[in-house]
Amino acid sequence: MSLLVWGSVALDSVETPTDKRDNVLGGSATFFSYAASYFKSPIQLVADVGDDWPAEHTKLLADRNVDMRGLNMIDGEKTFRWSGKYMPNMNDRETLEVHLNVLGKFDPVMPADYRDAKFVFLGNGSPAIQRKVLEQTPNRRLVVADTMDLWINIQRDELLDLFRRLDGLVLNDSEARLLTGDENLVRAGHKVREMGPKFVVIKKGEHGAMFFSADETYVMPAYPTPDVIDPTGAGDSFAGGMMGYLAEQDKITPQTLKTALAYGTLVASFTVEAFSLDRMKQIERADLDRRMEVYRKMLQF
Amino acid sequence: MSLLVWGSVALDSVETPTDKRDNVLGGSATFFSYAASYFKSPIQLVADVGDDWPAEHTKLLADRNVDMRGLNMIDGEKTFRWSGKYMPNMNDRETLEVHLNVLGKFDPVMPADYRDAKFVFLGNGSPAIQRKVLEQTPNRRLVVADTMDLWINIQRDELLDLFRRLDGLVLNDSEARLLTGDENLVRAGHKVREMGPKFVVIKKGEHGAMFFSADETYVMPAYPTPDVIDPTGAGDSFAGGMMGYLAEQDKITPQTLKTALAYGTLVASFTVEAFSLDRMKQIERADLDRRMEVYRKMLQF
Repeated sequence: MSLLVWGSVALDSVETPTDKRDNVLGGSATFFSYAASYFKSPIQLVADVGDDWPAEHTKLLADRNVDMRGLNMIDGEKTFRWSGKYMPNMNDRETLEVHLNVLGKFDPVMPADYRDAKFVFLGNGSPAIQRKVLEQTPNRRLVVADTMDLWINIQRDELLDLFRRLDGLVLNDSEARLLTGDENLVRAGHKVREMGPKFVVIKKGEHGAMFFSADETYVMPAYPTPDVIDPTGAGDSFAGGMMGYLAEQDKITPQTLKTALAYGTLVASFTVEAFSLDRMKQIERADLDRRMEVYRKMLQF
Repeated sequence: MSLLVWGSVALDSVETPTDKRDNVLGGSATFFSYAASYFKSPIQLVADVGDDWPAEHTKLLADRNVDMRGLNMIDGEKTFRWSGKYMPNMNDRETLEVHLNVLGKFDPVMPADYRDAKFVFLGNGSPAIQRKVLEQTPNRRLVVADTMDLWINIQRDELLDLFRRLDGLVLNDSEARLLTGDENLVRAGHKVREMGPKFVVIKKGEHGAMFFSADETYVMPAYPTPDVIDPTGAGDSFAGGMMGYLAEQDKITPQTLKTALAYGTLVASFTVEAFSLDRMKQIERADLDRRMEVYRKMLQF
């Protein structure tokens, strides 16, 4: 089933304790759609870029069968840029510079046939824009959104309004604590769920992810990779793997949701093994499935 | 098979963001032996207390079939006391006061028949004392130790000497990082293992535990309990559940080790649900096994 993603497409500059990269491909919609491309579903990307956008990046995603007609290039504008620096623990990071550029001006208008998308992912962005995207996908079966501390702090009401329209919400542990004021992530997860989304996924970086629905609470550990080179995009890769699998299966059950979370976990474990999309570019579905076998075995006793 | 534990027996004063308890039963050997008592193996405790030790605490453990002949009451001395305060996240804590009392004078001499113990746990303590206990159990089949940052900082050589005599080592995430200088816990776990222990368990509190042997690396998430009242003793309860199960099974295989880690995880999840041993006192093996069913199901997809 078709999977639509709205989000950012960016040029990132990333510094880790031992290395750095300038102007590499990044952005939530980029990581998401590449991650989803391991699964058998058409993917439609909606994002804006400036006229400084390298055509090779469009080709990279198009070659993965991502429908790039929704990528709007705006003349006279520049692409969103982010630069950040990771702390030695590789979990905490400092944002050095953000140039919103086109991102601040976004008014998503998508190709007419995108309206039929059945699975929809709203990357991190202002709740007002996320809602505009939502309203252009009236035939959706499942919509999942991401958010961040900024919107929790400055647009809480709009965010809560959005929550009531969502099937799922993914957010990280510090955001769940900020949103609920509860330090216990199990309680926080359920409190976020009670704000509207049918299910909530809390991402804990190297510590894995937690899932909350009315009937189920569970935790999935991260895949224990020794090679954490650059965590940028891990959360969006997680969401892409999760939604890619669900769109492929075209079935939303507790069982497919849990397997989807496991695929998300594994795609993310590859993403962090190199800068930008470099590690993802080296792997195929078979590599994911091999790691899945190890992961399943790891959790059985 | 018989399981011997050497460690501390203490009177704790614990403050959490919402509550506090003074002079409650604590100590590594206490939590460990109660946790191990859910399993079918004789437990032998070795620890020192002062003459201020309440007889009711001895009775509590003796009623759980813990052999208390190794509890030495030293006249004119006082029992080890610890007081601490938990931060709002309930993972970080500040030690407010430590009175080593008898603990600083410890020279373990145990009942002669304890020498036949097959499973041995060395609670946190100076590596020199841990080694003395080790040398009094020549017939052991498995010895596992705990340690802490203090010994890593001030008795590193003695600790490394101990490591070479161990089957297993349990330590927490910050200790593994301190010991190896590596922030990545997967690499840190293997580095600790290369220092001597055949296997290493890194405890991550609310994020679960990681296991490292020459052939295996895996992660087990914590059981997602919303009721974290007091985390004191969680690590020792984990070790007690793990070793109690292994001693009961009397078989050390990858399969029993992994199940043992799961039992450790679950006993710890009960321990944190109340102050001191209060929650543990309310449950029986059947409660552990019920939670085990939920936990197993949680990790299957």
